[in-house]
Amino acid sequence: MIANADAYTELMEFTRETEALGQIAGRLGWDQETMMADGSAPQRAEEHAAMSNILHARRTDPRVGDWLAKAVAADEVAAANLRHIRRAYDRTMKVPARLAAELAKTTSLAHRVWAQARADEDVAAFLPMLSKVVDLRREEAACLASGGDLYDALHDDYEPGSKSADLVAMFSALRPRLVALRAAILDAPAPAGLTGTFDEAGQLALSKKLAVAFGYDLNRGRIDKAVHPFSSGSGLDVRITTRTNPIDPFNCFYSTIHEVGHACYEQGINGDYLLTPLGNGVSMGVHESQSRIYENQLGRSRAFTGWLYGQMRDTFGDFGIPSEDAFYATVNKVNTGFIRTEADEVQYNLHVLLRFDLERALMAGDLLVADLESAWNDRFKADFGYAVDKPSNGVLQDVHWSEGLFGYFPTYTLGNVYAGCLHEALRAAVPGLDDDLARGDTTRATGWLRANLQQFGGLHEPRDTITRAAGFAPTEGPLLDYLEAKFNGIYGL
Amino acid sequence: MIANADAYTELMEFTRETEALGQIAGRLGWDQETMMADGSAPQRAEEHAAMSNILHARRTDPRVGDWLAKAVAADEVAAANLRHIRRAYDRTMKVPARLAAELAKTTSLAHRVWAQARADEDVAAFLPMLSKVVDLRREEAACLASGGDLYDALHDDYEPGSKSADLVAMFSALRPRLVALRAAILDAPAPAGLTGTFDEAGQLALSKKLAVAFGYDLNRGRIDKAVHPFSSGSGLDVRITTRTNPIDPFNCFYSTIHEVGHACYEQGINGDYLLTPLGNGVSMGVHESQSRIYENQLGRSRAFTGWLYGQMRDTFGDFGIPSEDAFYATVNKVNTGFIRTEADEVQYNLHVLLRFDLERALMAGDLLVADLESAWNDRFKADFGYAVDKPSNGVLQDVHWSEGLFGYFPTYTLGNVYAGCLHEALRAAVPGLDDDLARGDTTRATGWLRANLQQFGGLHEPRDTITRAAGFAPTEGPLLDYLEAKFNGIYGL
Repeated sequence: MIANADAYTELMEFTRETEALGQIAGRLGWDQETMMADGSAPQRAEEHAAMSNILHARRTDPRVGDWLAKAVAADEVAAANLRHIRRAYDRTMKVPARLAAELAKTTSLAHRVWAQARADEDVAAFLPMLSKVVDLRREEAACLASGGDLYDALHDDYEPGSKSADLVAMFSALRPRLVALRAAILDAPAPAGLTGTFDEAGQLALSKKLAVAFGYDLNRGRIDKAVHPFSSGSGLDVRITTRTNPIDPFNCFYSTIHEVGHACYEQGINGDYLLTPLGNGVSMGVHESQSRIYENQLGRSRAFTGWLYGQMRDTFGDFGIPSEDAFYATVNKVNTGFIRTEADEVQYNLHVLLRFDLERALMAGDLLVADLESAWNDRFKADFGYAVDKPSNGVLQDVHWSEGLFGYFPTYTLGNVYAGCLHEALRAAVPGLDDDLARGDTTRATGWLRANLQQFGGLHEPRDTITRAAGFAPTEGPLLDYLEAKFNGIYGL
Repeated sequence: MIANADAYTELMEFTRETEALGQIAGRLGWDQETMMADGSAPQRAEEHAAMSNILHARRTDPRVGDWLAKAVAADEVAAANLRHIRRAYDRTMKVPARLAAELAKTTSLAHRVWAQARADEDVAAFLPMLSKVVDLRREEAACLASGGDLYDALHDDYEPGSKSADLVAMFSALRPRLVALRAAILDAPAPAGLTGTFDEAGQLALSKKLAVAFGYDLNRGRIDKAVHPFSSGSGLDVRITTRTNPIDPFNCFYSTIHEVGHACYEQGINGDYLLTPLGNGVSMGVHESQSRIYENQLGRSRAFTGWLYGQMRDTFGDFGIPSEDAFYATVNKVNTGFIRTEADEVQYNLHVLLRFDLERALMAGDLLVADLESAWNDRFKADFGYAVDKPSNGVLQDVHWSEGLFGYFPTYTLGNVYAGCLHEALRAAVPGLDDDLARGDTTRATGWLRANLQQFGGLHEPRDTITRAAGFAPTEGPLLDYLEAKFNGIYGL
């Protein structure tokens, strides 16, 4: 028998080891995307499976249930740790092992089928697999929802406490103003784009300088190249990746700043929370708020782009943009396009809103997989004003659904909304911030974010995390006001 | 109850997952030496500990004992798998958990104390820790030996089936001829050494070319820089490291070829043995036979160095060595020195023999730790002809004893002896090999090694592995004959 007083201690010792193993599993993923040779893939799949089995066994270990039943929280930190551990344990125990295994197997297969279908522009080839994934996730959601909303049950994995009713209200307020802003921008004369090529060594050197300028600590991480940029790891080993494109150095620079936002959140968490449930960013939405405020509200500001303009001229010489003001417009140029991951600040959320509505309808049973492509194309035309030309530019463009990640998309827009709120509060708290940014100095901005948000890790619930930092409950107004002011200025609307 | 017929299958499924986890643990070590930032070290220590606990729990899982009791070997492969699993399980179960934990803790601490003592040239600071390590390893050896020889019980971990009585006879035959050869060489006029500097990019490019020339498959591995070169991993993901020194490119090239020998052994094992106990090199000595025959008998041969001479001139221009013959002598130049890892083919084994005799005496209780330094210095003077000048050049030079690796050193010389035997057999089996090597073509040489040794992995016992490949039981004669012929030729003795 475990004494109540020891239960929390024993649970946390066990959890700490699980968190350490989770870090190893994450680094295995990092290695696969950055270092591993192609021929190692079959063995790596077995290594991943072995690690997943170990982690699953620990997460369903009956001792965790015993400890949770007896553990007493002595303080706020302990209460938060127990909340995280209990939520994860309850969630895992609600899903039958048979279903969890079938989901893992099906999504792994569906991912490969999706990649091939996208390459072949063949929606029909993907739909049977997608149907299976949808059915399994609906079955899982039913296990989790206890009679509640199926979509919310899945979304809760990524943004605990967030409800689709609130999202619907928020996103409904976003959509008309974003659609209108987008239309006005595309009717106005476009600023110049970049021309010419930018050498890779210069891009990588400047992207490293940007990472350091935004406070990324290379003594507890590293930067490598990857096909799709990502940040990985928590605590003392948080690594980022970037990529280069000879004609589009902004892709490199703003991918880097985005991932630095994620990484600085992880690096900025109170060191006392290392390898505990509090030692990770608290949700996908809050995580995205950090990557987005670094990338957009700070990195794409007039002040900071003024500094970046000088850095690019130092690195690449005269690249044909005549002034800081012109460069600011070029950085923020709004282009027509189909792809979410390439979208600018104005159009990005329209992409997410489209996916949110479609995946909610799929989970509710109101939209059949067979009708998904036409639903996508109709909605795209309505919001963007032109038709999808091929499936890889439409319903097949994102990896998420093939991996079963229903409920994930709205966290992107939540993150942008959160970033809007944080930015408003930051500007109020740090007068003269633009003078800093114009020198490439983000110290006060990132310091404010660390002090008011990042350091707390998982201590508070996601929405509460934002409310405490911003000083008000999250709402879409600040993001919309910011976007309209910024783009009205750039486009002279 | 497990049916006997299923026991082997279930045991192998469990073992396969353990092997996969072992590969992950090994890659964590690779990452630490090549990729990890310094500031990540404290977290990494916890990750290592978590992984060690998982592996230890699996290795002592009572189900392994049950399966072993019931499993029936249907063929030679199954019998070999059971032999490996049983040996590892019996070994682990013989050592009390308390002692295993104390050894892990003490050697981890002793390693740090040793590093500091070596930096400070302070033997006395290391001896108390070394005493503890010696005592604990003697205690462990007593658990393992069941009344037999303590040293053999430890040595068996690295070279199963090898006995110190045999090593004593073999090494006693080596010593006088090596001492005499060394003395004669150093009395003769010395060949020219390298002068000038060799740029790093050129060294790394040529070292990669050498790796490929020796058959290393970069599609199932990669080459990085590390402070101390090593090879790691098995199966489909075998990685090597190298290092560069601007005035000593041979360090880079021959480190690379050495590690390629280890790596090609792992890459050359029958793919059916992937993630089983047979899918790893069978012992340290057999492993070293591959690294050494690649590095020395092939890589430092007159024929191959002729090709390398041309490659170096293509890469670095004229570097002051006038001919292939002169270059061959430069590559094989015998220098006085104190450090084992920098020693040439002639002197290397004298270093190992010294350590073997001292560590056997320590384990037998015939030599006290307090007397170790003077014993080292006396023996060094007797074999090498001059006195050790400082502890970092003497008793503090090697990491092994701080980590408790008693019984490991002789596998280096066993590897050289094995390489001598294999080389004799290879030359008989592949006439005209020097014509290949003179073109930088090792295909027939490495093909013979793969066909006759590497592919079998852990199928046969170590000594048997050599006997089957060479066609005769391993003996020191071929190595000595080879060394005397080679160096008599170079030095005109």
